[in-house]
Amino acid sequence: MWNALLDRLLRHLVKRGTLTLRFPDGSRQTYGDGGEPAVDVAVHRRATVRALILNPELALGEAYMNGGLTIGNDDLRGLLTLLLRNRSERGLLWWQRPLQWLRKALRRLGQFNPVGRARRNVAHHYDLSGELYELFLDRDRQYSCAYFRRPDDTLEQAQENKKHHIARKLLIRPGMRVLDIGCGWGGMALTLARDYGAHVVGVTLSEEQHAVATRRAEEAGLADRVEFRLMDYREVSESFDRIVSVGMFEHVGVPHYREYFRQVRDRLKPDGIALIHTIGRTDGPGTTNPFILKYIFPGGYVPAMSEAMAAIERERLTATDVEIWRLHYAETLRNWLARFEANIERARAIYDERFCRMWRFYLLGSELAFRLDGQVVFQFQLARDQEAVPLTRDYLYRDAAAPTVEERLHHAAE
Amino acid sequence: MWNALLDRLLRHLVKRGTLTLRFPDGSRQTYGDGGEPAVDVAVHRRATVRALILNPELALGEAYMNGGLTIGNDDLRGLLTLLLRNRSERGLLWWQRPLQWLRKALRRLGQFNPVGRARRNVAHHYDLSGELYELFLDRDRQYSCAYFRRPDDTLEQAQENKKHHIARKLLIRPGMRVLDIGCGWGGMALTLARDYGAHVVGVTLSEEQHAVATRRAEEAGLADRVEFRLMDYREVSESFDRIVSVGMFEHVGVPHYREYFRQVRDRLKPDGIALIHTIGRTDGPGTTNPFILKYIFPGGYVPAMSEAMAAIERERLTATDVEIWRLHYAETLRNWLARFEANIERARAIYDERFCRMWRFYLLGSELAFRLDGQVVFQFQLARDQEAVPLTRDYLYRDAAAPTVEERLHHAAE
Repeated sequence: MWNALLDRLLRHLVKRGTLTLRFPDGSRQTYGDGGEPAVDVAVHRRATVRALILNPELALGEAYMNGGLTIGNDDLRGLLTLLLRNRSERGLLWWQRPLQWLRKALRRLGQFNPVGRARRNVAHHYDLSGELYELFLDRDRQYSCAYFRRPDDTLEQAQENKKHHIARKLLIRPGMRVLDIGCGWGGMALTLARDYGAHVVGVTLSEEQHAVATRRAEEAGLADRVEFRLMDYREVSESFDRIVSVGMFEHVGVPHYREYFRQVRDRLKPDGIALIHTIGRTDGPGTTNPFILKYIFPGGYVPAMSEAMAAIERERLTATDVEIWRLHYAETLRNWLARFEANIERARAIYDERFCRMWRFYLLGSELAFRLDGQVVFQFQLARDQEAVPLTRDYLYRDAAAPTVEERLHHAAE
Repeated sequence: MWNALLDRLLRHLVKRGTLTLRFPDGSRQTYGDGGEPAVDVAVHRRATVRALILNPELALGEAYMNGGLTIGNDDLRGLLTLLLRNRSERGLLWWQRPLQWLRKALRRLGQFNPVGRARRNVAHHYDLSGELYELFLDRDRQYSCAYFRRPDDTLEQAQENKKHHIARKLLIRPGMRVLDIGCGWGGMALTLARDYGAHVVGVTLSEEQHAVATRRAEEAGLADRVEFRLMDYREVSESFDRIVSVGMFEHVGVPHYREYFRQVRDRLKPDGIALIHTIGRTDGPGTTNPFILKYIFPGGYVPAMSEAMAAIERERLTATDVEIWRLHYAETLRNWLARFEANIERARAIYDERFCRMWRFYLLGSELAFRLDGQVVFQFQLARDQEAVPLTRDYLYRDAAAPTVEERLHHAAE
């Protein structure tokens, strides 16, 4: 029966490309139109077949990690590309609908992140060995989407671009007090202090990040202007001229959106500006991929713009600009994955093969979610007073660090 | 009793500025902190007092139109400024809450705009004598927010800026087919045809606009490239490379948002781009000002971004950029009002004093809604395929008609 259901599911799903599946009983079936990508998959256990019916997204990742299925030439990219390309065009089968409905109904539970649980969620991911992050991130350890102003920017350059683009949106003047919610290993805070003369308070719940960021501030001679705190952002109580939060909102969860933006508003001076940078989904409210939720980001959720804006509006913040980055994160993740694969032996030495397969599935699946499944990045520029930012956005594209003045003259002459 | 309730309402509302009120029985009361603006108001009829309690926004406009109240020095700007400044800080009184709740519950009825009713709604406003619109609009009859790239731009220049800014967002190439939903008197369509080489179909439900636009296309020698149709946008059935819709979405109504964006998606080619320009509210879902709904725009509603985005997401369009214009419409309306006042004698000759007071209340109230009450303009750039637009927004701020290349060099050198 389970084999028949999986057969039915794949017949429904795979219309483009070619998937050849070997079932645990040795039988083979081919799906699709015979085109590319063409991928062979062998499912070795009956339990894997059952899991693929009941919770396909989780089961696929777990089977890849645990050897419950193997892919010809280990072509995970081909398999995920094939599945995502087809999925975006196909609806759910009848037995999948109640399961999806149940997941939506229960999503608030998975995203209930009071202070204690938020701390455990963060420790799960960010307190992994610092050495792991060195294996795939840039040298500044920017663990969020880079900004490829030019297609041939390196990852290092694109991460610099990102920080300066955000700094321009914040219109920072020397001496301003800035709160960095979810400061990571401190790269953004150090840049705002060093290059823009800001006084920055960065908060993180990760002990590992806090230790690294604090050490970096000291080494850079910026300890008098940058302070990192190991605390929940909800426990901060001062006022700030500017608030920046990059790649942290994904951990907040819909039940806490109003609490998040209320804290942004309450911590912001009347003429303050905030810049919230987050992954976004373009297909409306949904649920978190269960593999990501279980293994990578417990408590996490990628917002639809309508969900974030509903909370922003109710907390009486004004969105003064919303930029949407598409494909920048696909490029970022492609770079991360390439670096990770280049360092795979070191990764195996720190963890084990199962961990490496989990991490590969996460990075590759995320890259393809941006390339093929409508994931994007939102940058919400927010203010309490709509006059806090200039009347046009020209200031963002003027005197930019990249392209240089010479390059702009060249463009202008074209 | 009604006097006492009005007294209570004003005590609650007016904390800043000074309002001196003369009640119909001749008694006087002063509210506020004694500061500016200071306004004297005399209410002449007991029916006006009652109306101000039950539906203050409608009653205020009607009493101003009909002489149920008079304002010292006819200082309507002072009165509305005082009321709006205070309102944004004060909640509702207990008896106002059920009325507001009822209005929200019933708003779907007021915004039920099937084809026939949409036509009547449009006729109500846009089939007013064309001469009226000449009294306050620019020479191109742009009846939507202008874009003041520089603070000293004239209205004429700012309306040109608006059209070219939108054209840049649409990335129009010569020969492309463009649909203009709600084309007004044709200015946008003619610009896209003349300056960008597009083939444009403009649709309007206003017979007056359709006749004027068609004549303008002929006079400009563009009749072979621009076609204006007197029809509902829902009845268009071809495909287009680009869709533009400026100041029309305000007439759609929340119950029709999905229908609107479904039509945008269905009319757009797979690599198409749409630009939807609409007034927006920043304080979340609400109701239409009852004066505006009754006298100016029946069936109209100004969306919150969360409302528009929810429909965009569900109709599987991707927002690729959201620009928010603040204060540009306040400046536009200030210009319109000044021109209207300068031509008030001609307006009186076309209509009557009551109409002129209604129109002044509309223009001035709208200006102040943008200046003091969080109204803005949203420009949604939408695509079916996220790769339809460039990876960064630099292209919008390059080779711009204004500032000129020389001015950009000057900026770059600063």
